Amino acid sequence: MSLKVAIIGFGSVGKGVIKVLSERKDDKFQVVAITDSKGAVLDDKGLDLADVLKKKNNGDLKRVNKSSMDVVKECDYDILVEVTPTDAKTGQPGLSYIIEALKRGKHVVTSNKGPVALKYKELKELAKKNNVQFLFEATVGGSMPVFNLMRGPLAGNEINSIEGIFNGTCNYILTRMASEGLPYDMVLSEAKELGIAEADPTYDVEGIDTALKMVILANSVFGMDVGLDDVDRVGISSVCLEALKLAGEADMVIKLIGEVHPNGEERVLKVSPRLVPKTHPLAVQGTLNAALIRTKLAGDIFVIGKGAGSVETASAILSDMLYIASLQ
Amino acid sequence: MSLKVAIIGFGSVGKGVIKVLSERKDDKFQVVAITDSKGAVLDDKGLDLADVLKKKNNGDLKRVNKSSMDVVKECDYDILVEVTPTDAKTGQPGLSYIIEALKRGKHVVTSNKGPVALKYKELKELAKKNNVQFLFEATVGGSMPVFNLMRGPLAGNEINSIEGIFNGTCNYILTRMASEGLPYDMVLSEAKELGIAEADPTYDVEGIDTALKMVILANSVFGMDVGLDDVDRVGISSVCLEALKLAGEADMVIKLIGEVHPNGEERVLKVSPRLVPKTHPLAVQGTLNAALIRTKLAGDIFVIGKGAGSVETASAILSDMLYIASLQ
Repeated sequence: MSLKVAIIGFGSVGKGVIKVLSERKDDKFQVVAITDSKGAVLDDKGLDLADVLKKKNNGDLKRVNKSSMDVVKECDYDILVEVTPTDAKTGQPGLSYIIEALKRGKHVVTSNKGPVALKYKELKELAKKNNVQFLFEATVGGSMPVFNLMRGPLAGNEINSIEGIFNGTCNYILTRMASEGLPYDMVLSEAKELGIAEADPTYDVEGIDTALKMVILANSVFGMDVGLDDVDRVGISSVCLEALKLAGEADMVIKLIGEVHPNGEERVLKVSPRLVPKTHPLAVQGTLNAALIRTKLAGDIFVIGKGAGSVETASAILSDMLYIASLQ
Repeated sequence: MSLKVAIIGFGSVGKGVIKVLSERKDDKFQVVAITDSKGAVLDDKGLDLADVLKKKNNGDLKRVNKSSMDVVKECDYDILVEVTPTDAKTGQPGLSYIIEALKRGKHVVTSNKGPVALKYKELKELAKKNNVQFLFEATVGGSMPVFNLMRGPLAGNEINSIEGIFNGTCNYILTRMASEGLPYDMVLSEAKELGIAEADPTYDVEGIDTALKMVILANSVFGMDVGLDDVDRVGISSVCLEALKLAGEADMVIKLIGEVHPNGEERVLKVSPRLVPKTHPLAVQGTLNAALIRTKLAGDIFVIGKGAGSVETASAILSDMLYIASLQ
């Protein structure tokens, strides 16, 4: 039997999810609702996703007058796919949607970093109490598997620490500065033109995005109880060409590295530009993300992939959905 | 309830498995039999693994006079962990043990490349017919997850191709030759002294080990039906210092790359030394392994880890065992 899916949010990630689901040849999932700020499209028997996507792109999608919260509270679905934008301070509106769905005993899959970073413990407990899954692979590293890697292939391993490059925008800027010898401001402008950086790039370049991801990892993997303010955070705007040049002469590169190491006095929870040898597996280029997961048995495991992108993020969401399907 | 485990083979990998299981704090698994060429140690109620390991290392382990095949055929267990050495030509003796266990309706987890490379299709069908699992994560890439990565975190992704470095011995030799400017023979001698290369290194340096792994990937991931002779194979013994020097001047390195690409005219099944840019994620150093999995949705995913080692290989075996436990 198909699992009924409600998708809250119809931006880049929502579109990716709908595209990916529309191309699946099995009937594991049936999308019964899609909402955005303008209303909802609903069909109990399953929406024609290709048609919805076409109309959305043409700007002639007909919605009914129901809010996202109406759908979360009233609609008949098994999995809520919550893909609204991240608000790092309040987690809203995603946080309220997630709470409502979990209370109703629905599984939740989200790409929204706000709710997970702010309320991981409460949400996980609420999910447990209601005997449903609360999954968020897409919040860290885009298509690069992190949580699912630790749950499945690295199961049985004690995880000692996690560090890596978790923001493609910063990695692009630092890579271009180093390879072309161009100053920060010039590369940032270029990144904005290419759509790699936002018009207001603060969230990325000041390391806030990476810090949120470290909070999610700290709380969910290591059972810590920390927030954004607990992260020792420095962004990349102060990285100068001279520093990159000196690094290059020593066969090093400068990368914005996030790190979580949970243990006692060695405890580390930080985001900062750091020197990485050019030959080190974390020294990936362009917009790539890279994570080093230090484990007790398997040793150091690196995983590298695209940290962003509509379909790539949808791939992470799909892996969570398939995990839920495998439990049925 | 615990799953009963019989371990066939008490070499480096078997020891690793026993060490890892002895340190687990739950009772998911209970080892009821361990065999080697000298006999078997048995206990229906579960062996004291720390004690067995100590006695094995001290050389005073008392065995009963039962062969591995006796244990496979007669003993009461749920999972057979088959960790005897690889024979690339016959797959024996592991192949017979695996067939017997599957016929008896027992799950099988193996690190033995021979049986999987030679008889994947038959063994998988036999497992399916008997409604049990046949898993072999440890055959490719040691602790680096490959099969479990594709089954779990990359589930839902079409895999387009797989390539990478799958032999730590070759990677060590090529890395040392390039970084120190030393000739092949000298580095090979050094690798033998360090225990990184076997006394007879043919299996590794001629690319046979990598080719076996490509056969396993080809048959199990892409549904091909190929054998060792179908692999277009060149080893590293002919890589000269001059070639490494020229590569270095072009910011490249030479790596022994295995590749499987299943599609029609582009079909590739080969192992050969190839140029890789120094900044490419596959350009890992020392004994590391690295795989590039090209997927439809998630894009290019790289995974890097230790390709060998007693506990590292045991970690891969444990992940298969935990997957079986998760299905109970």
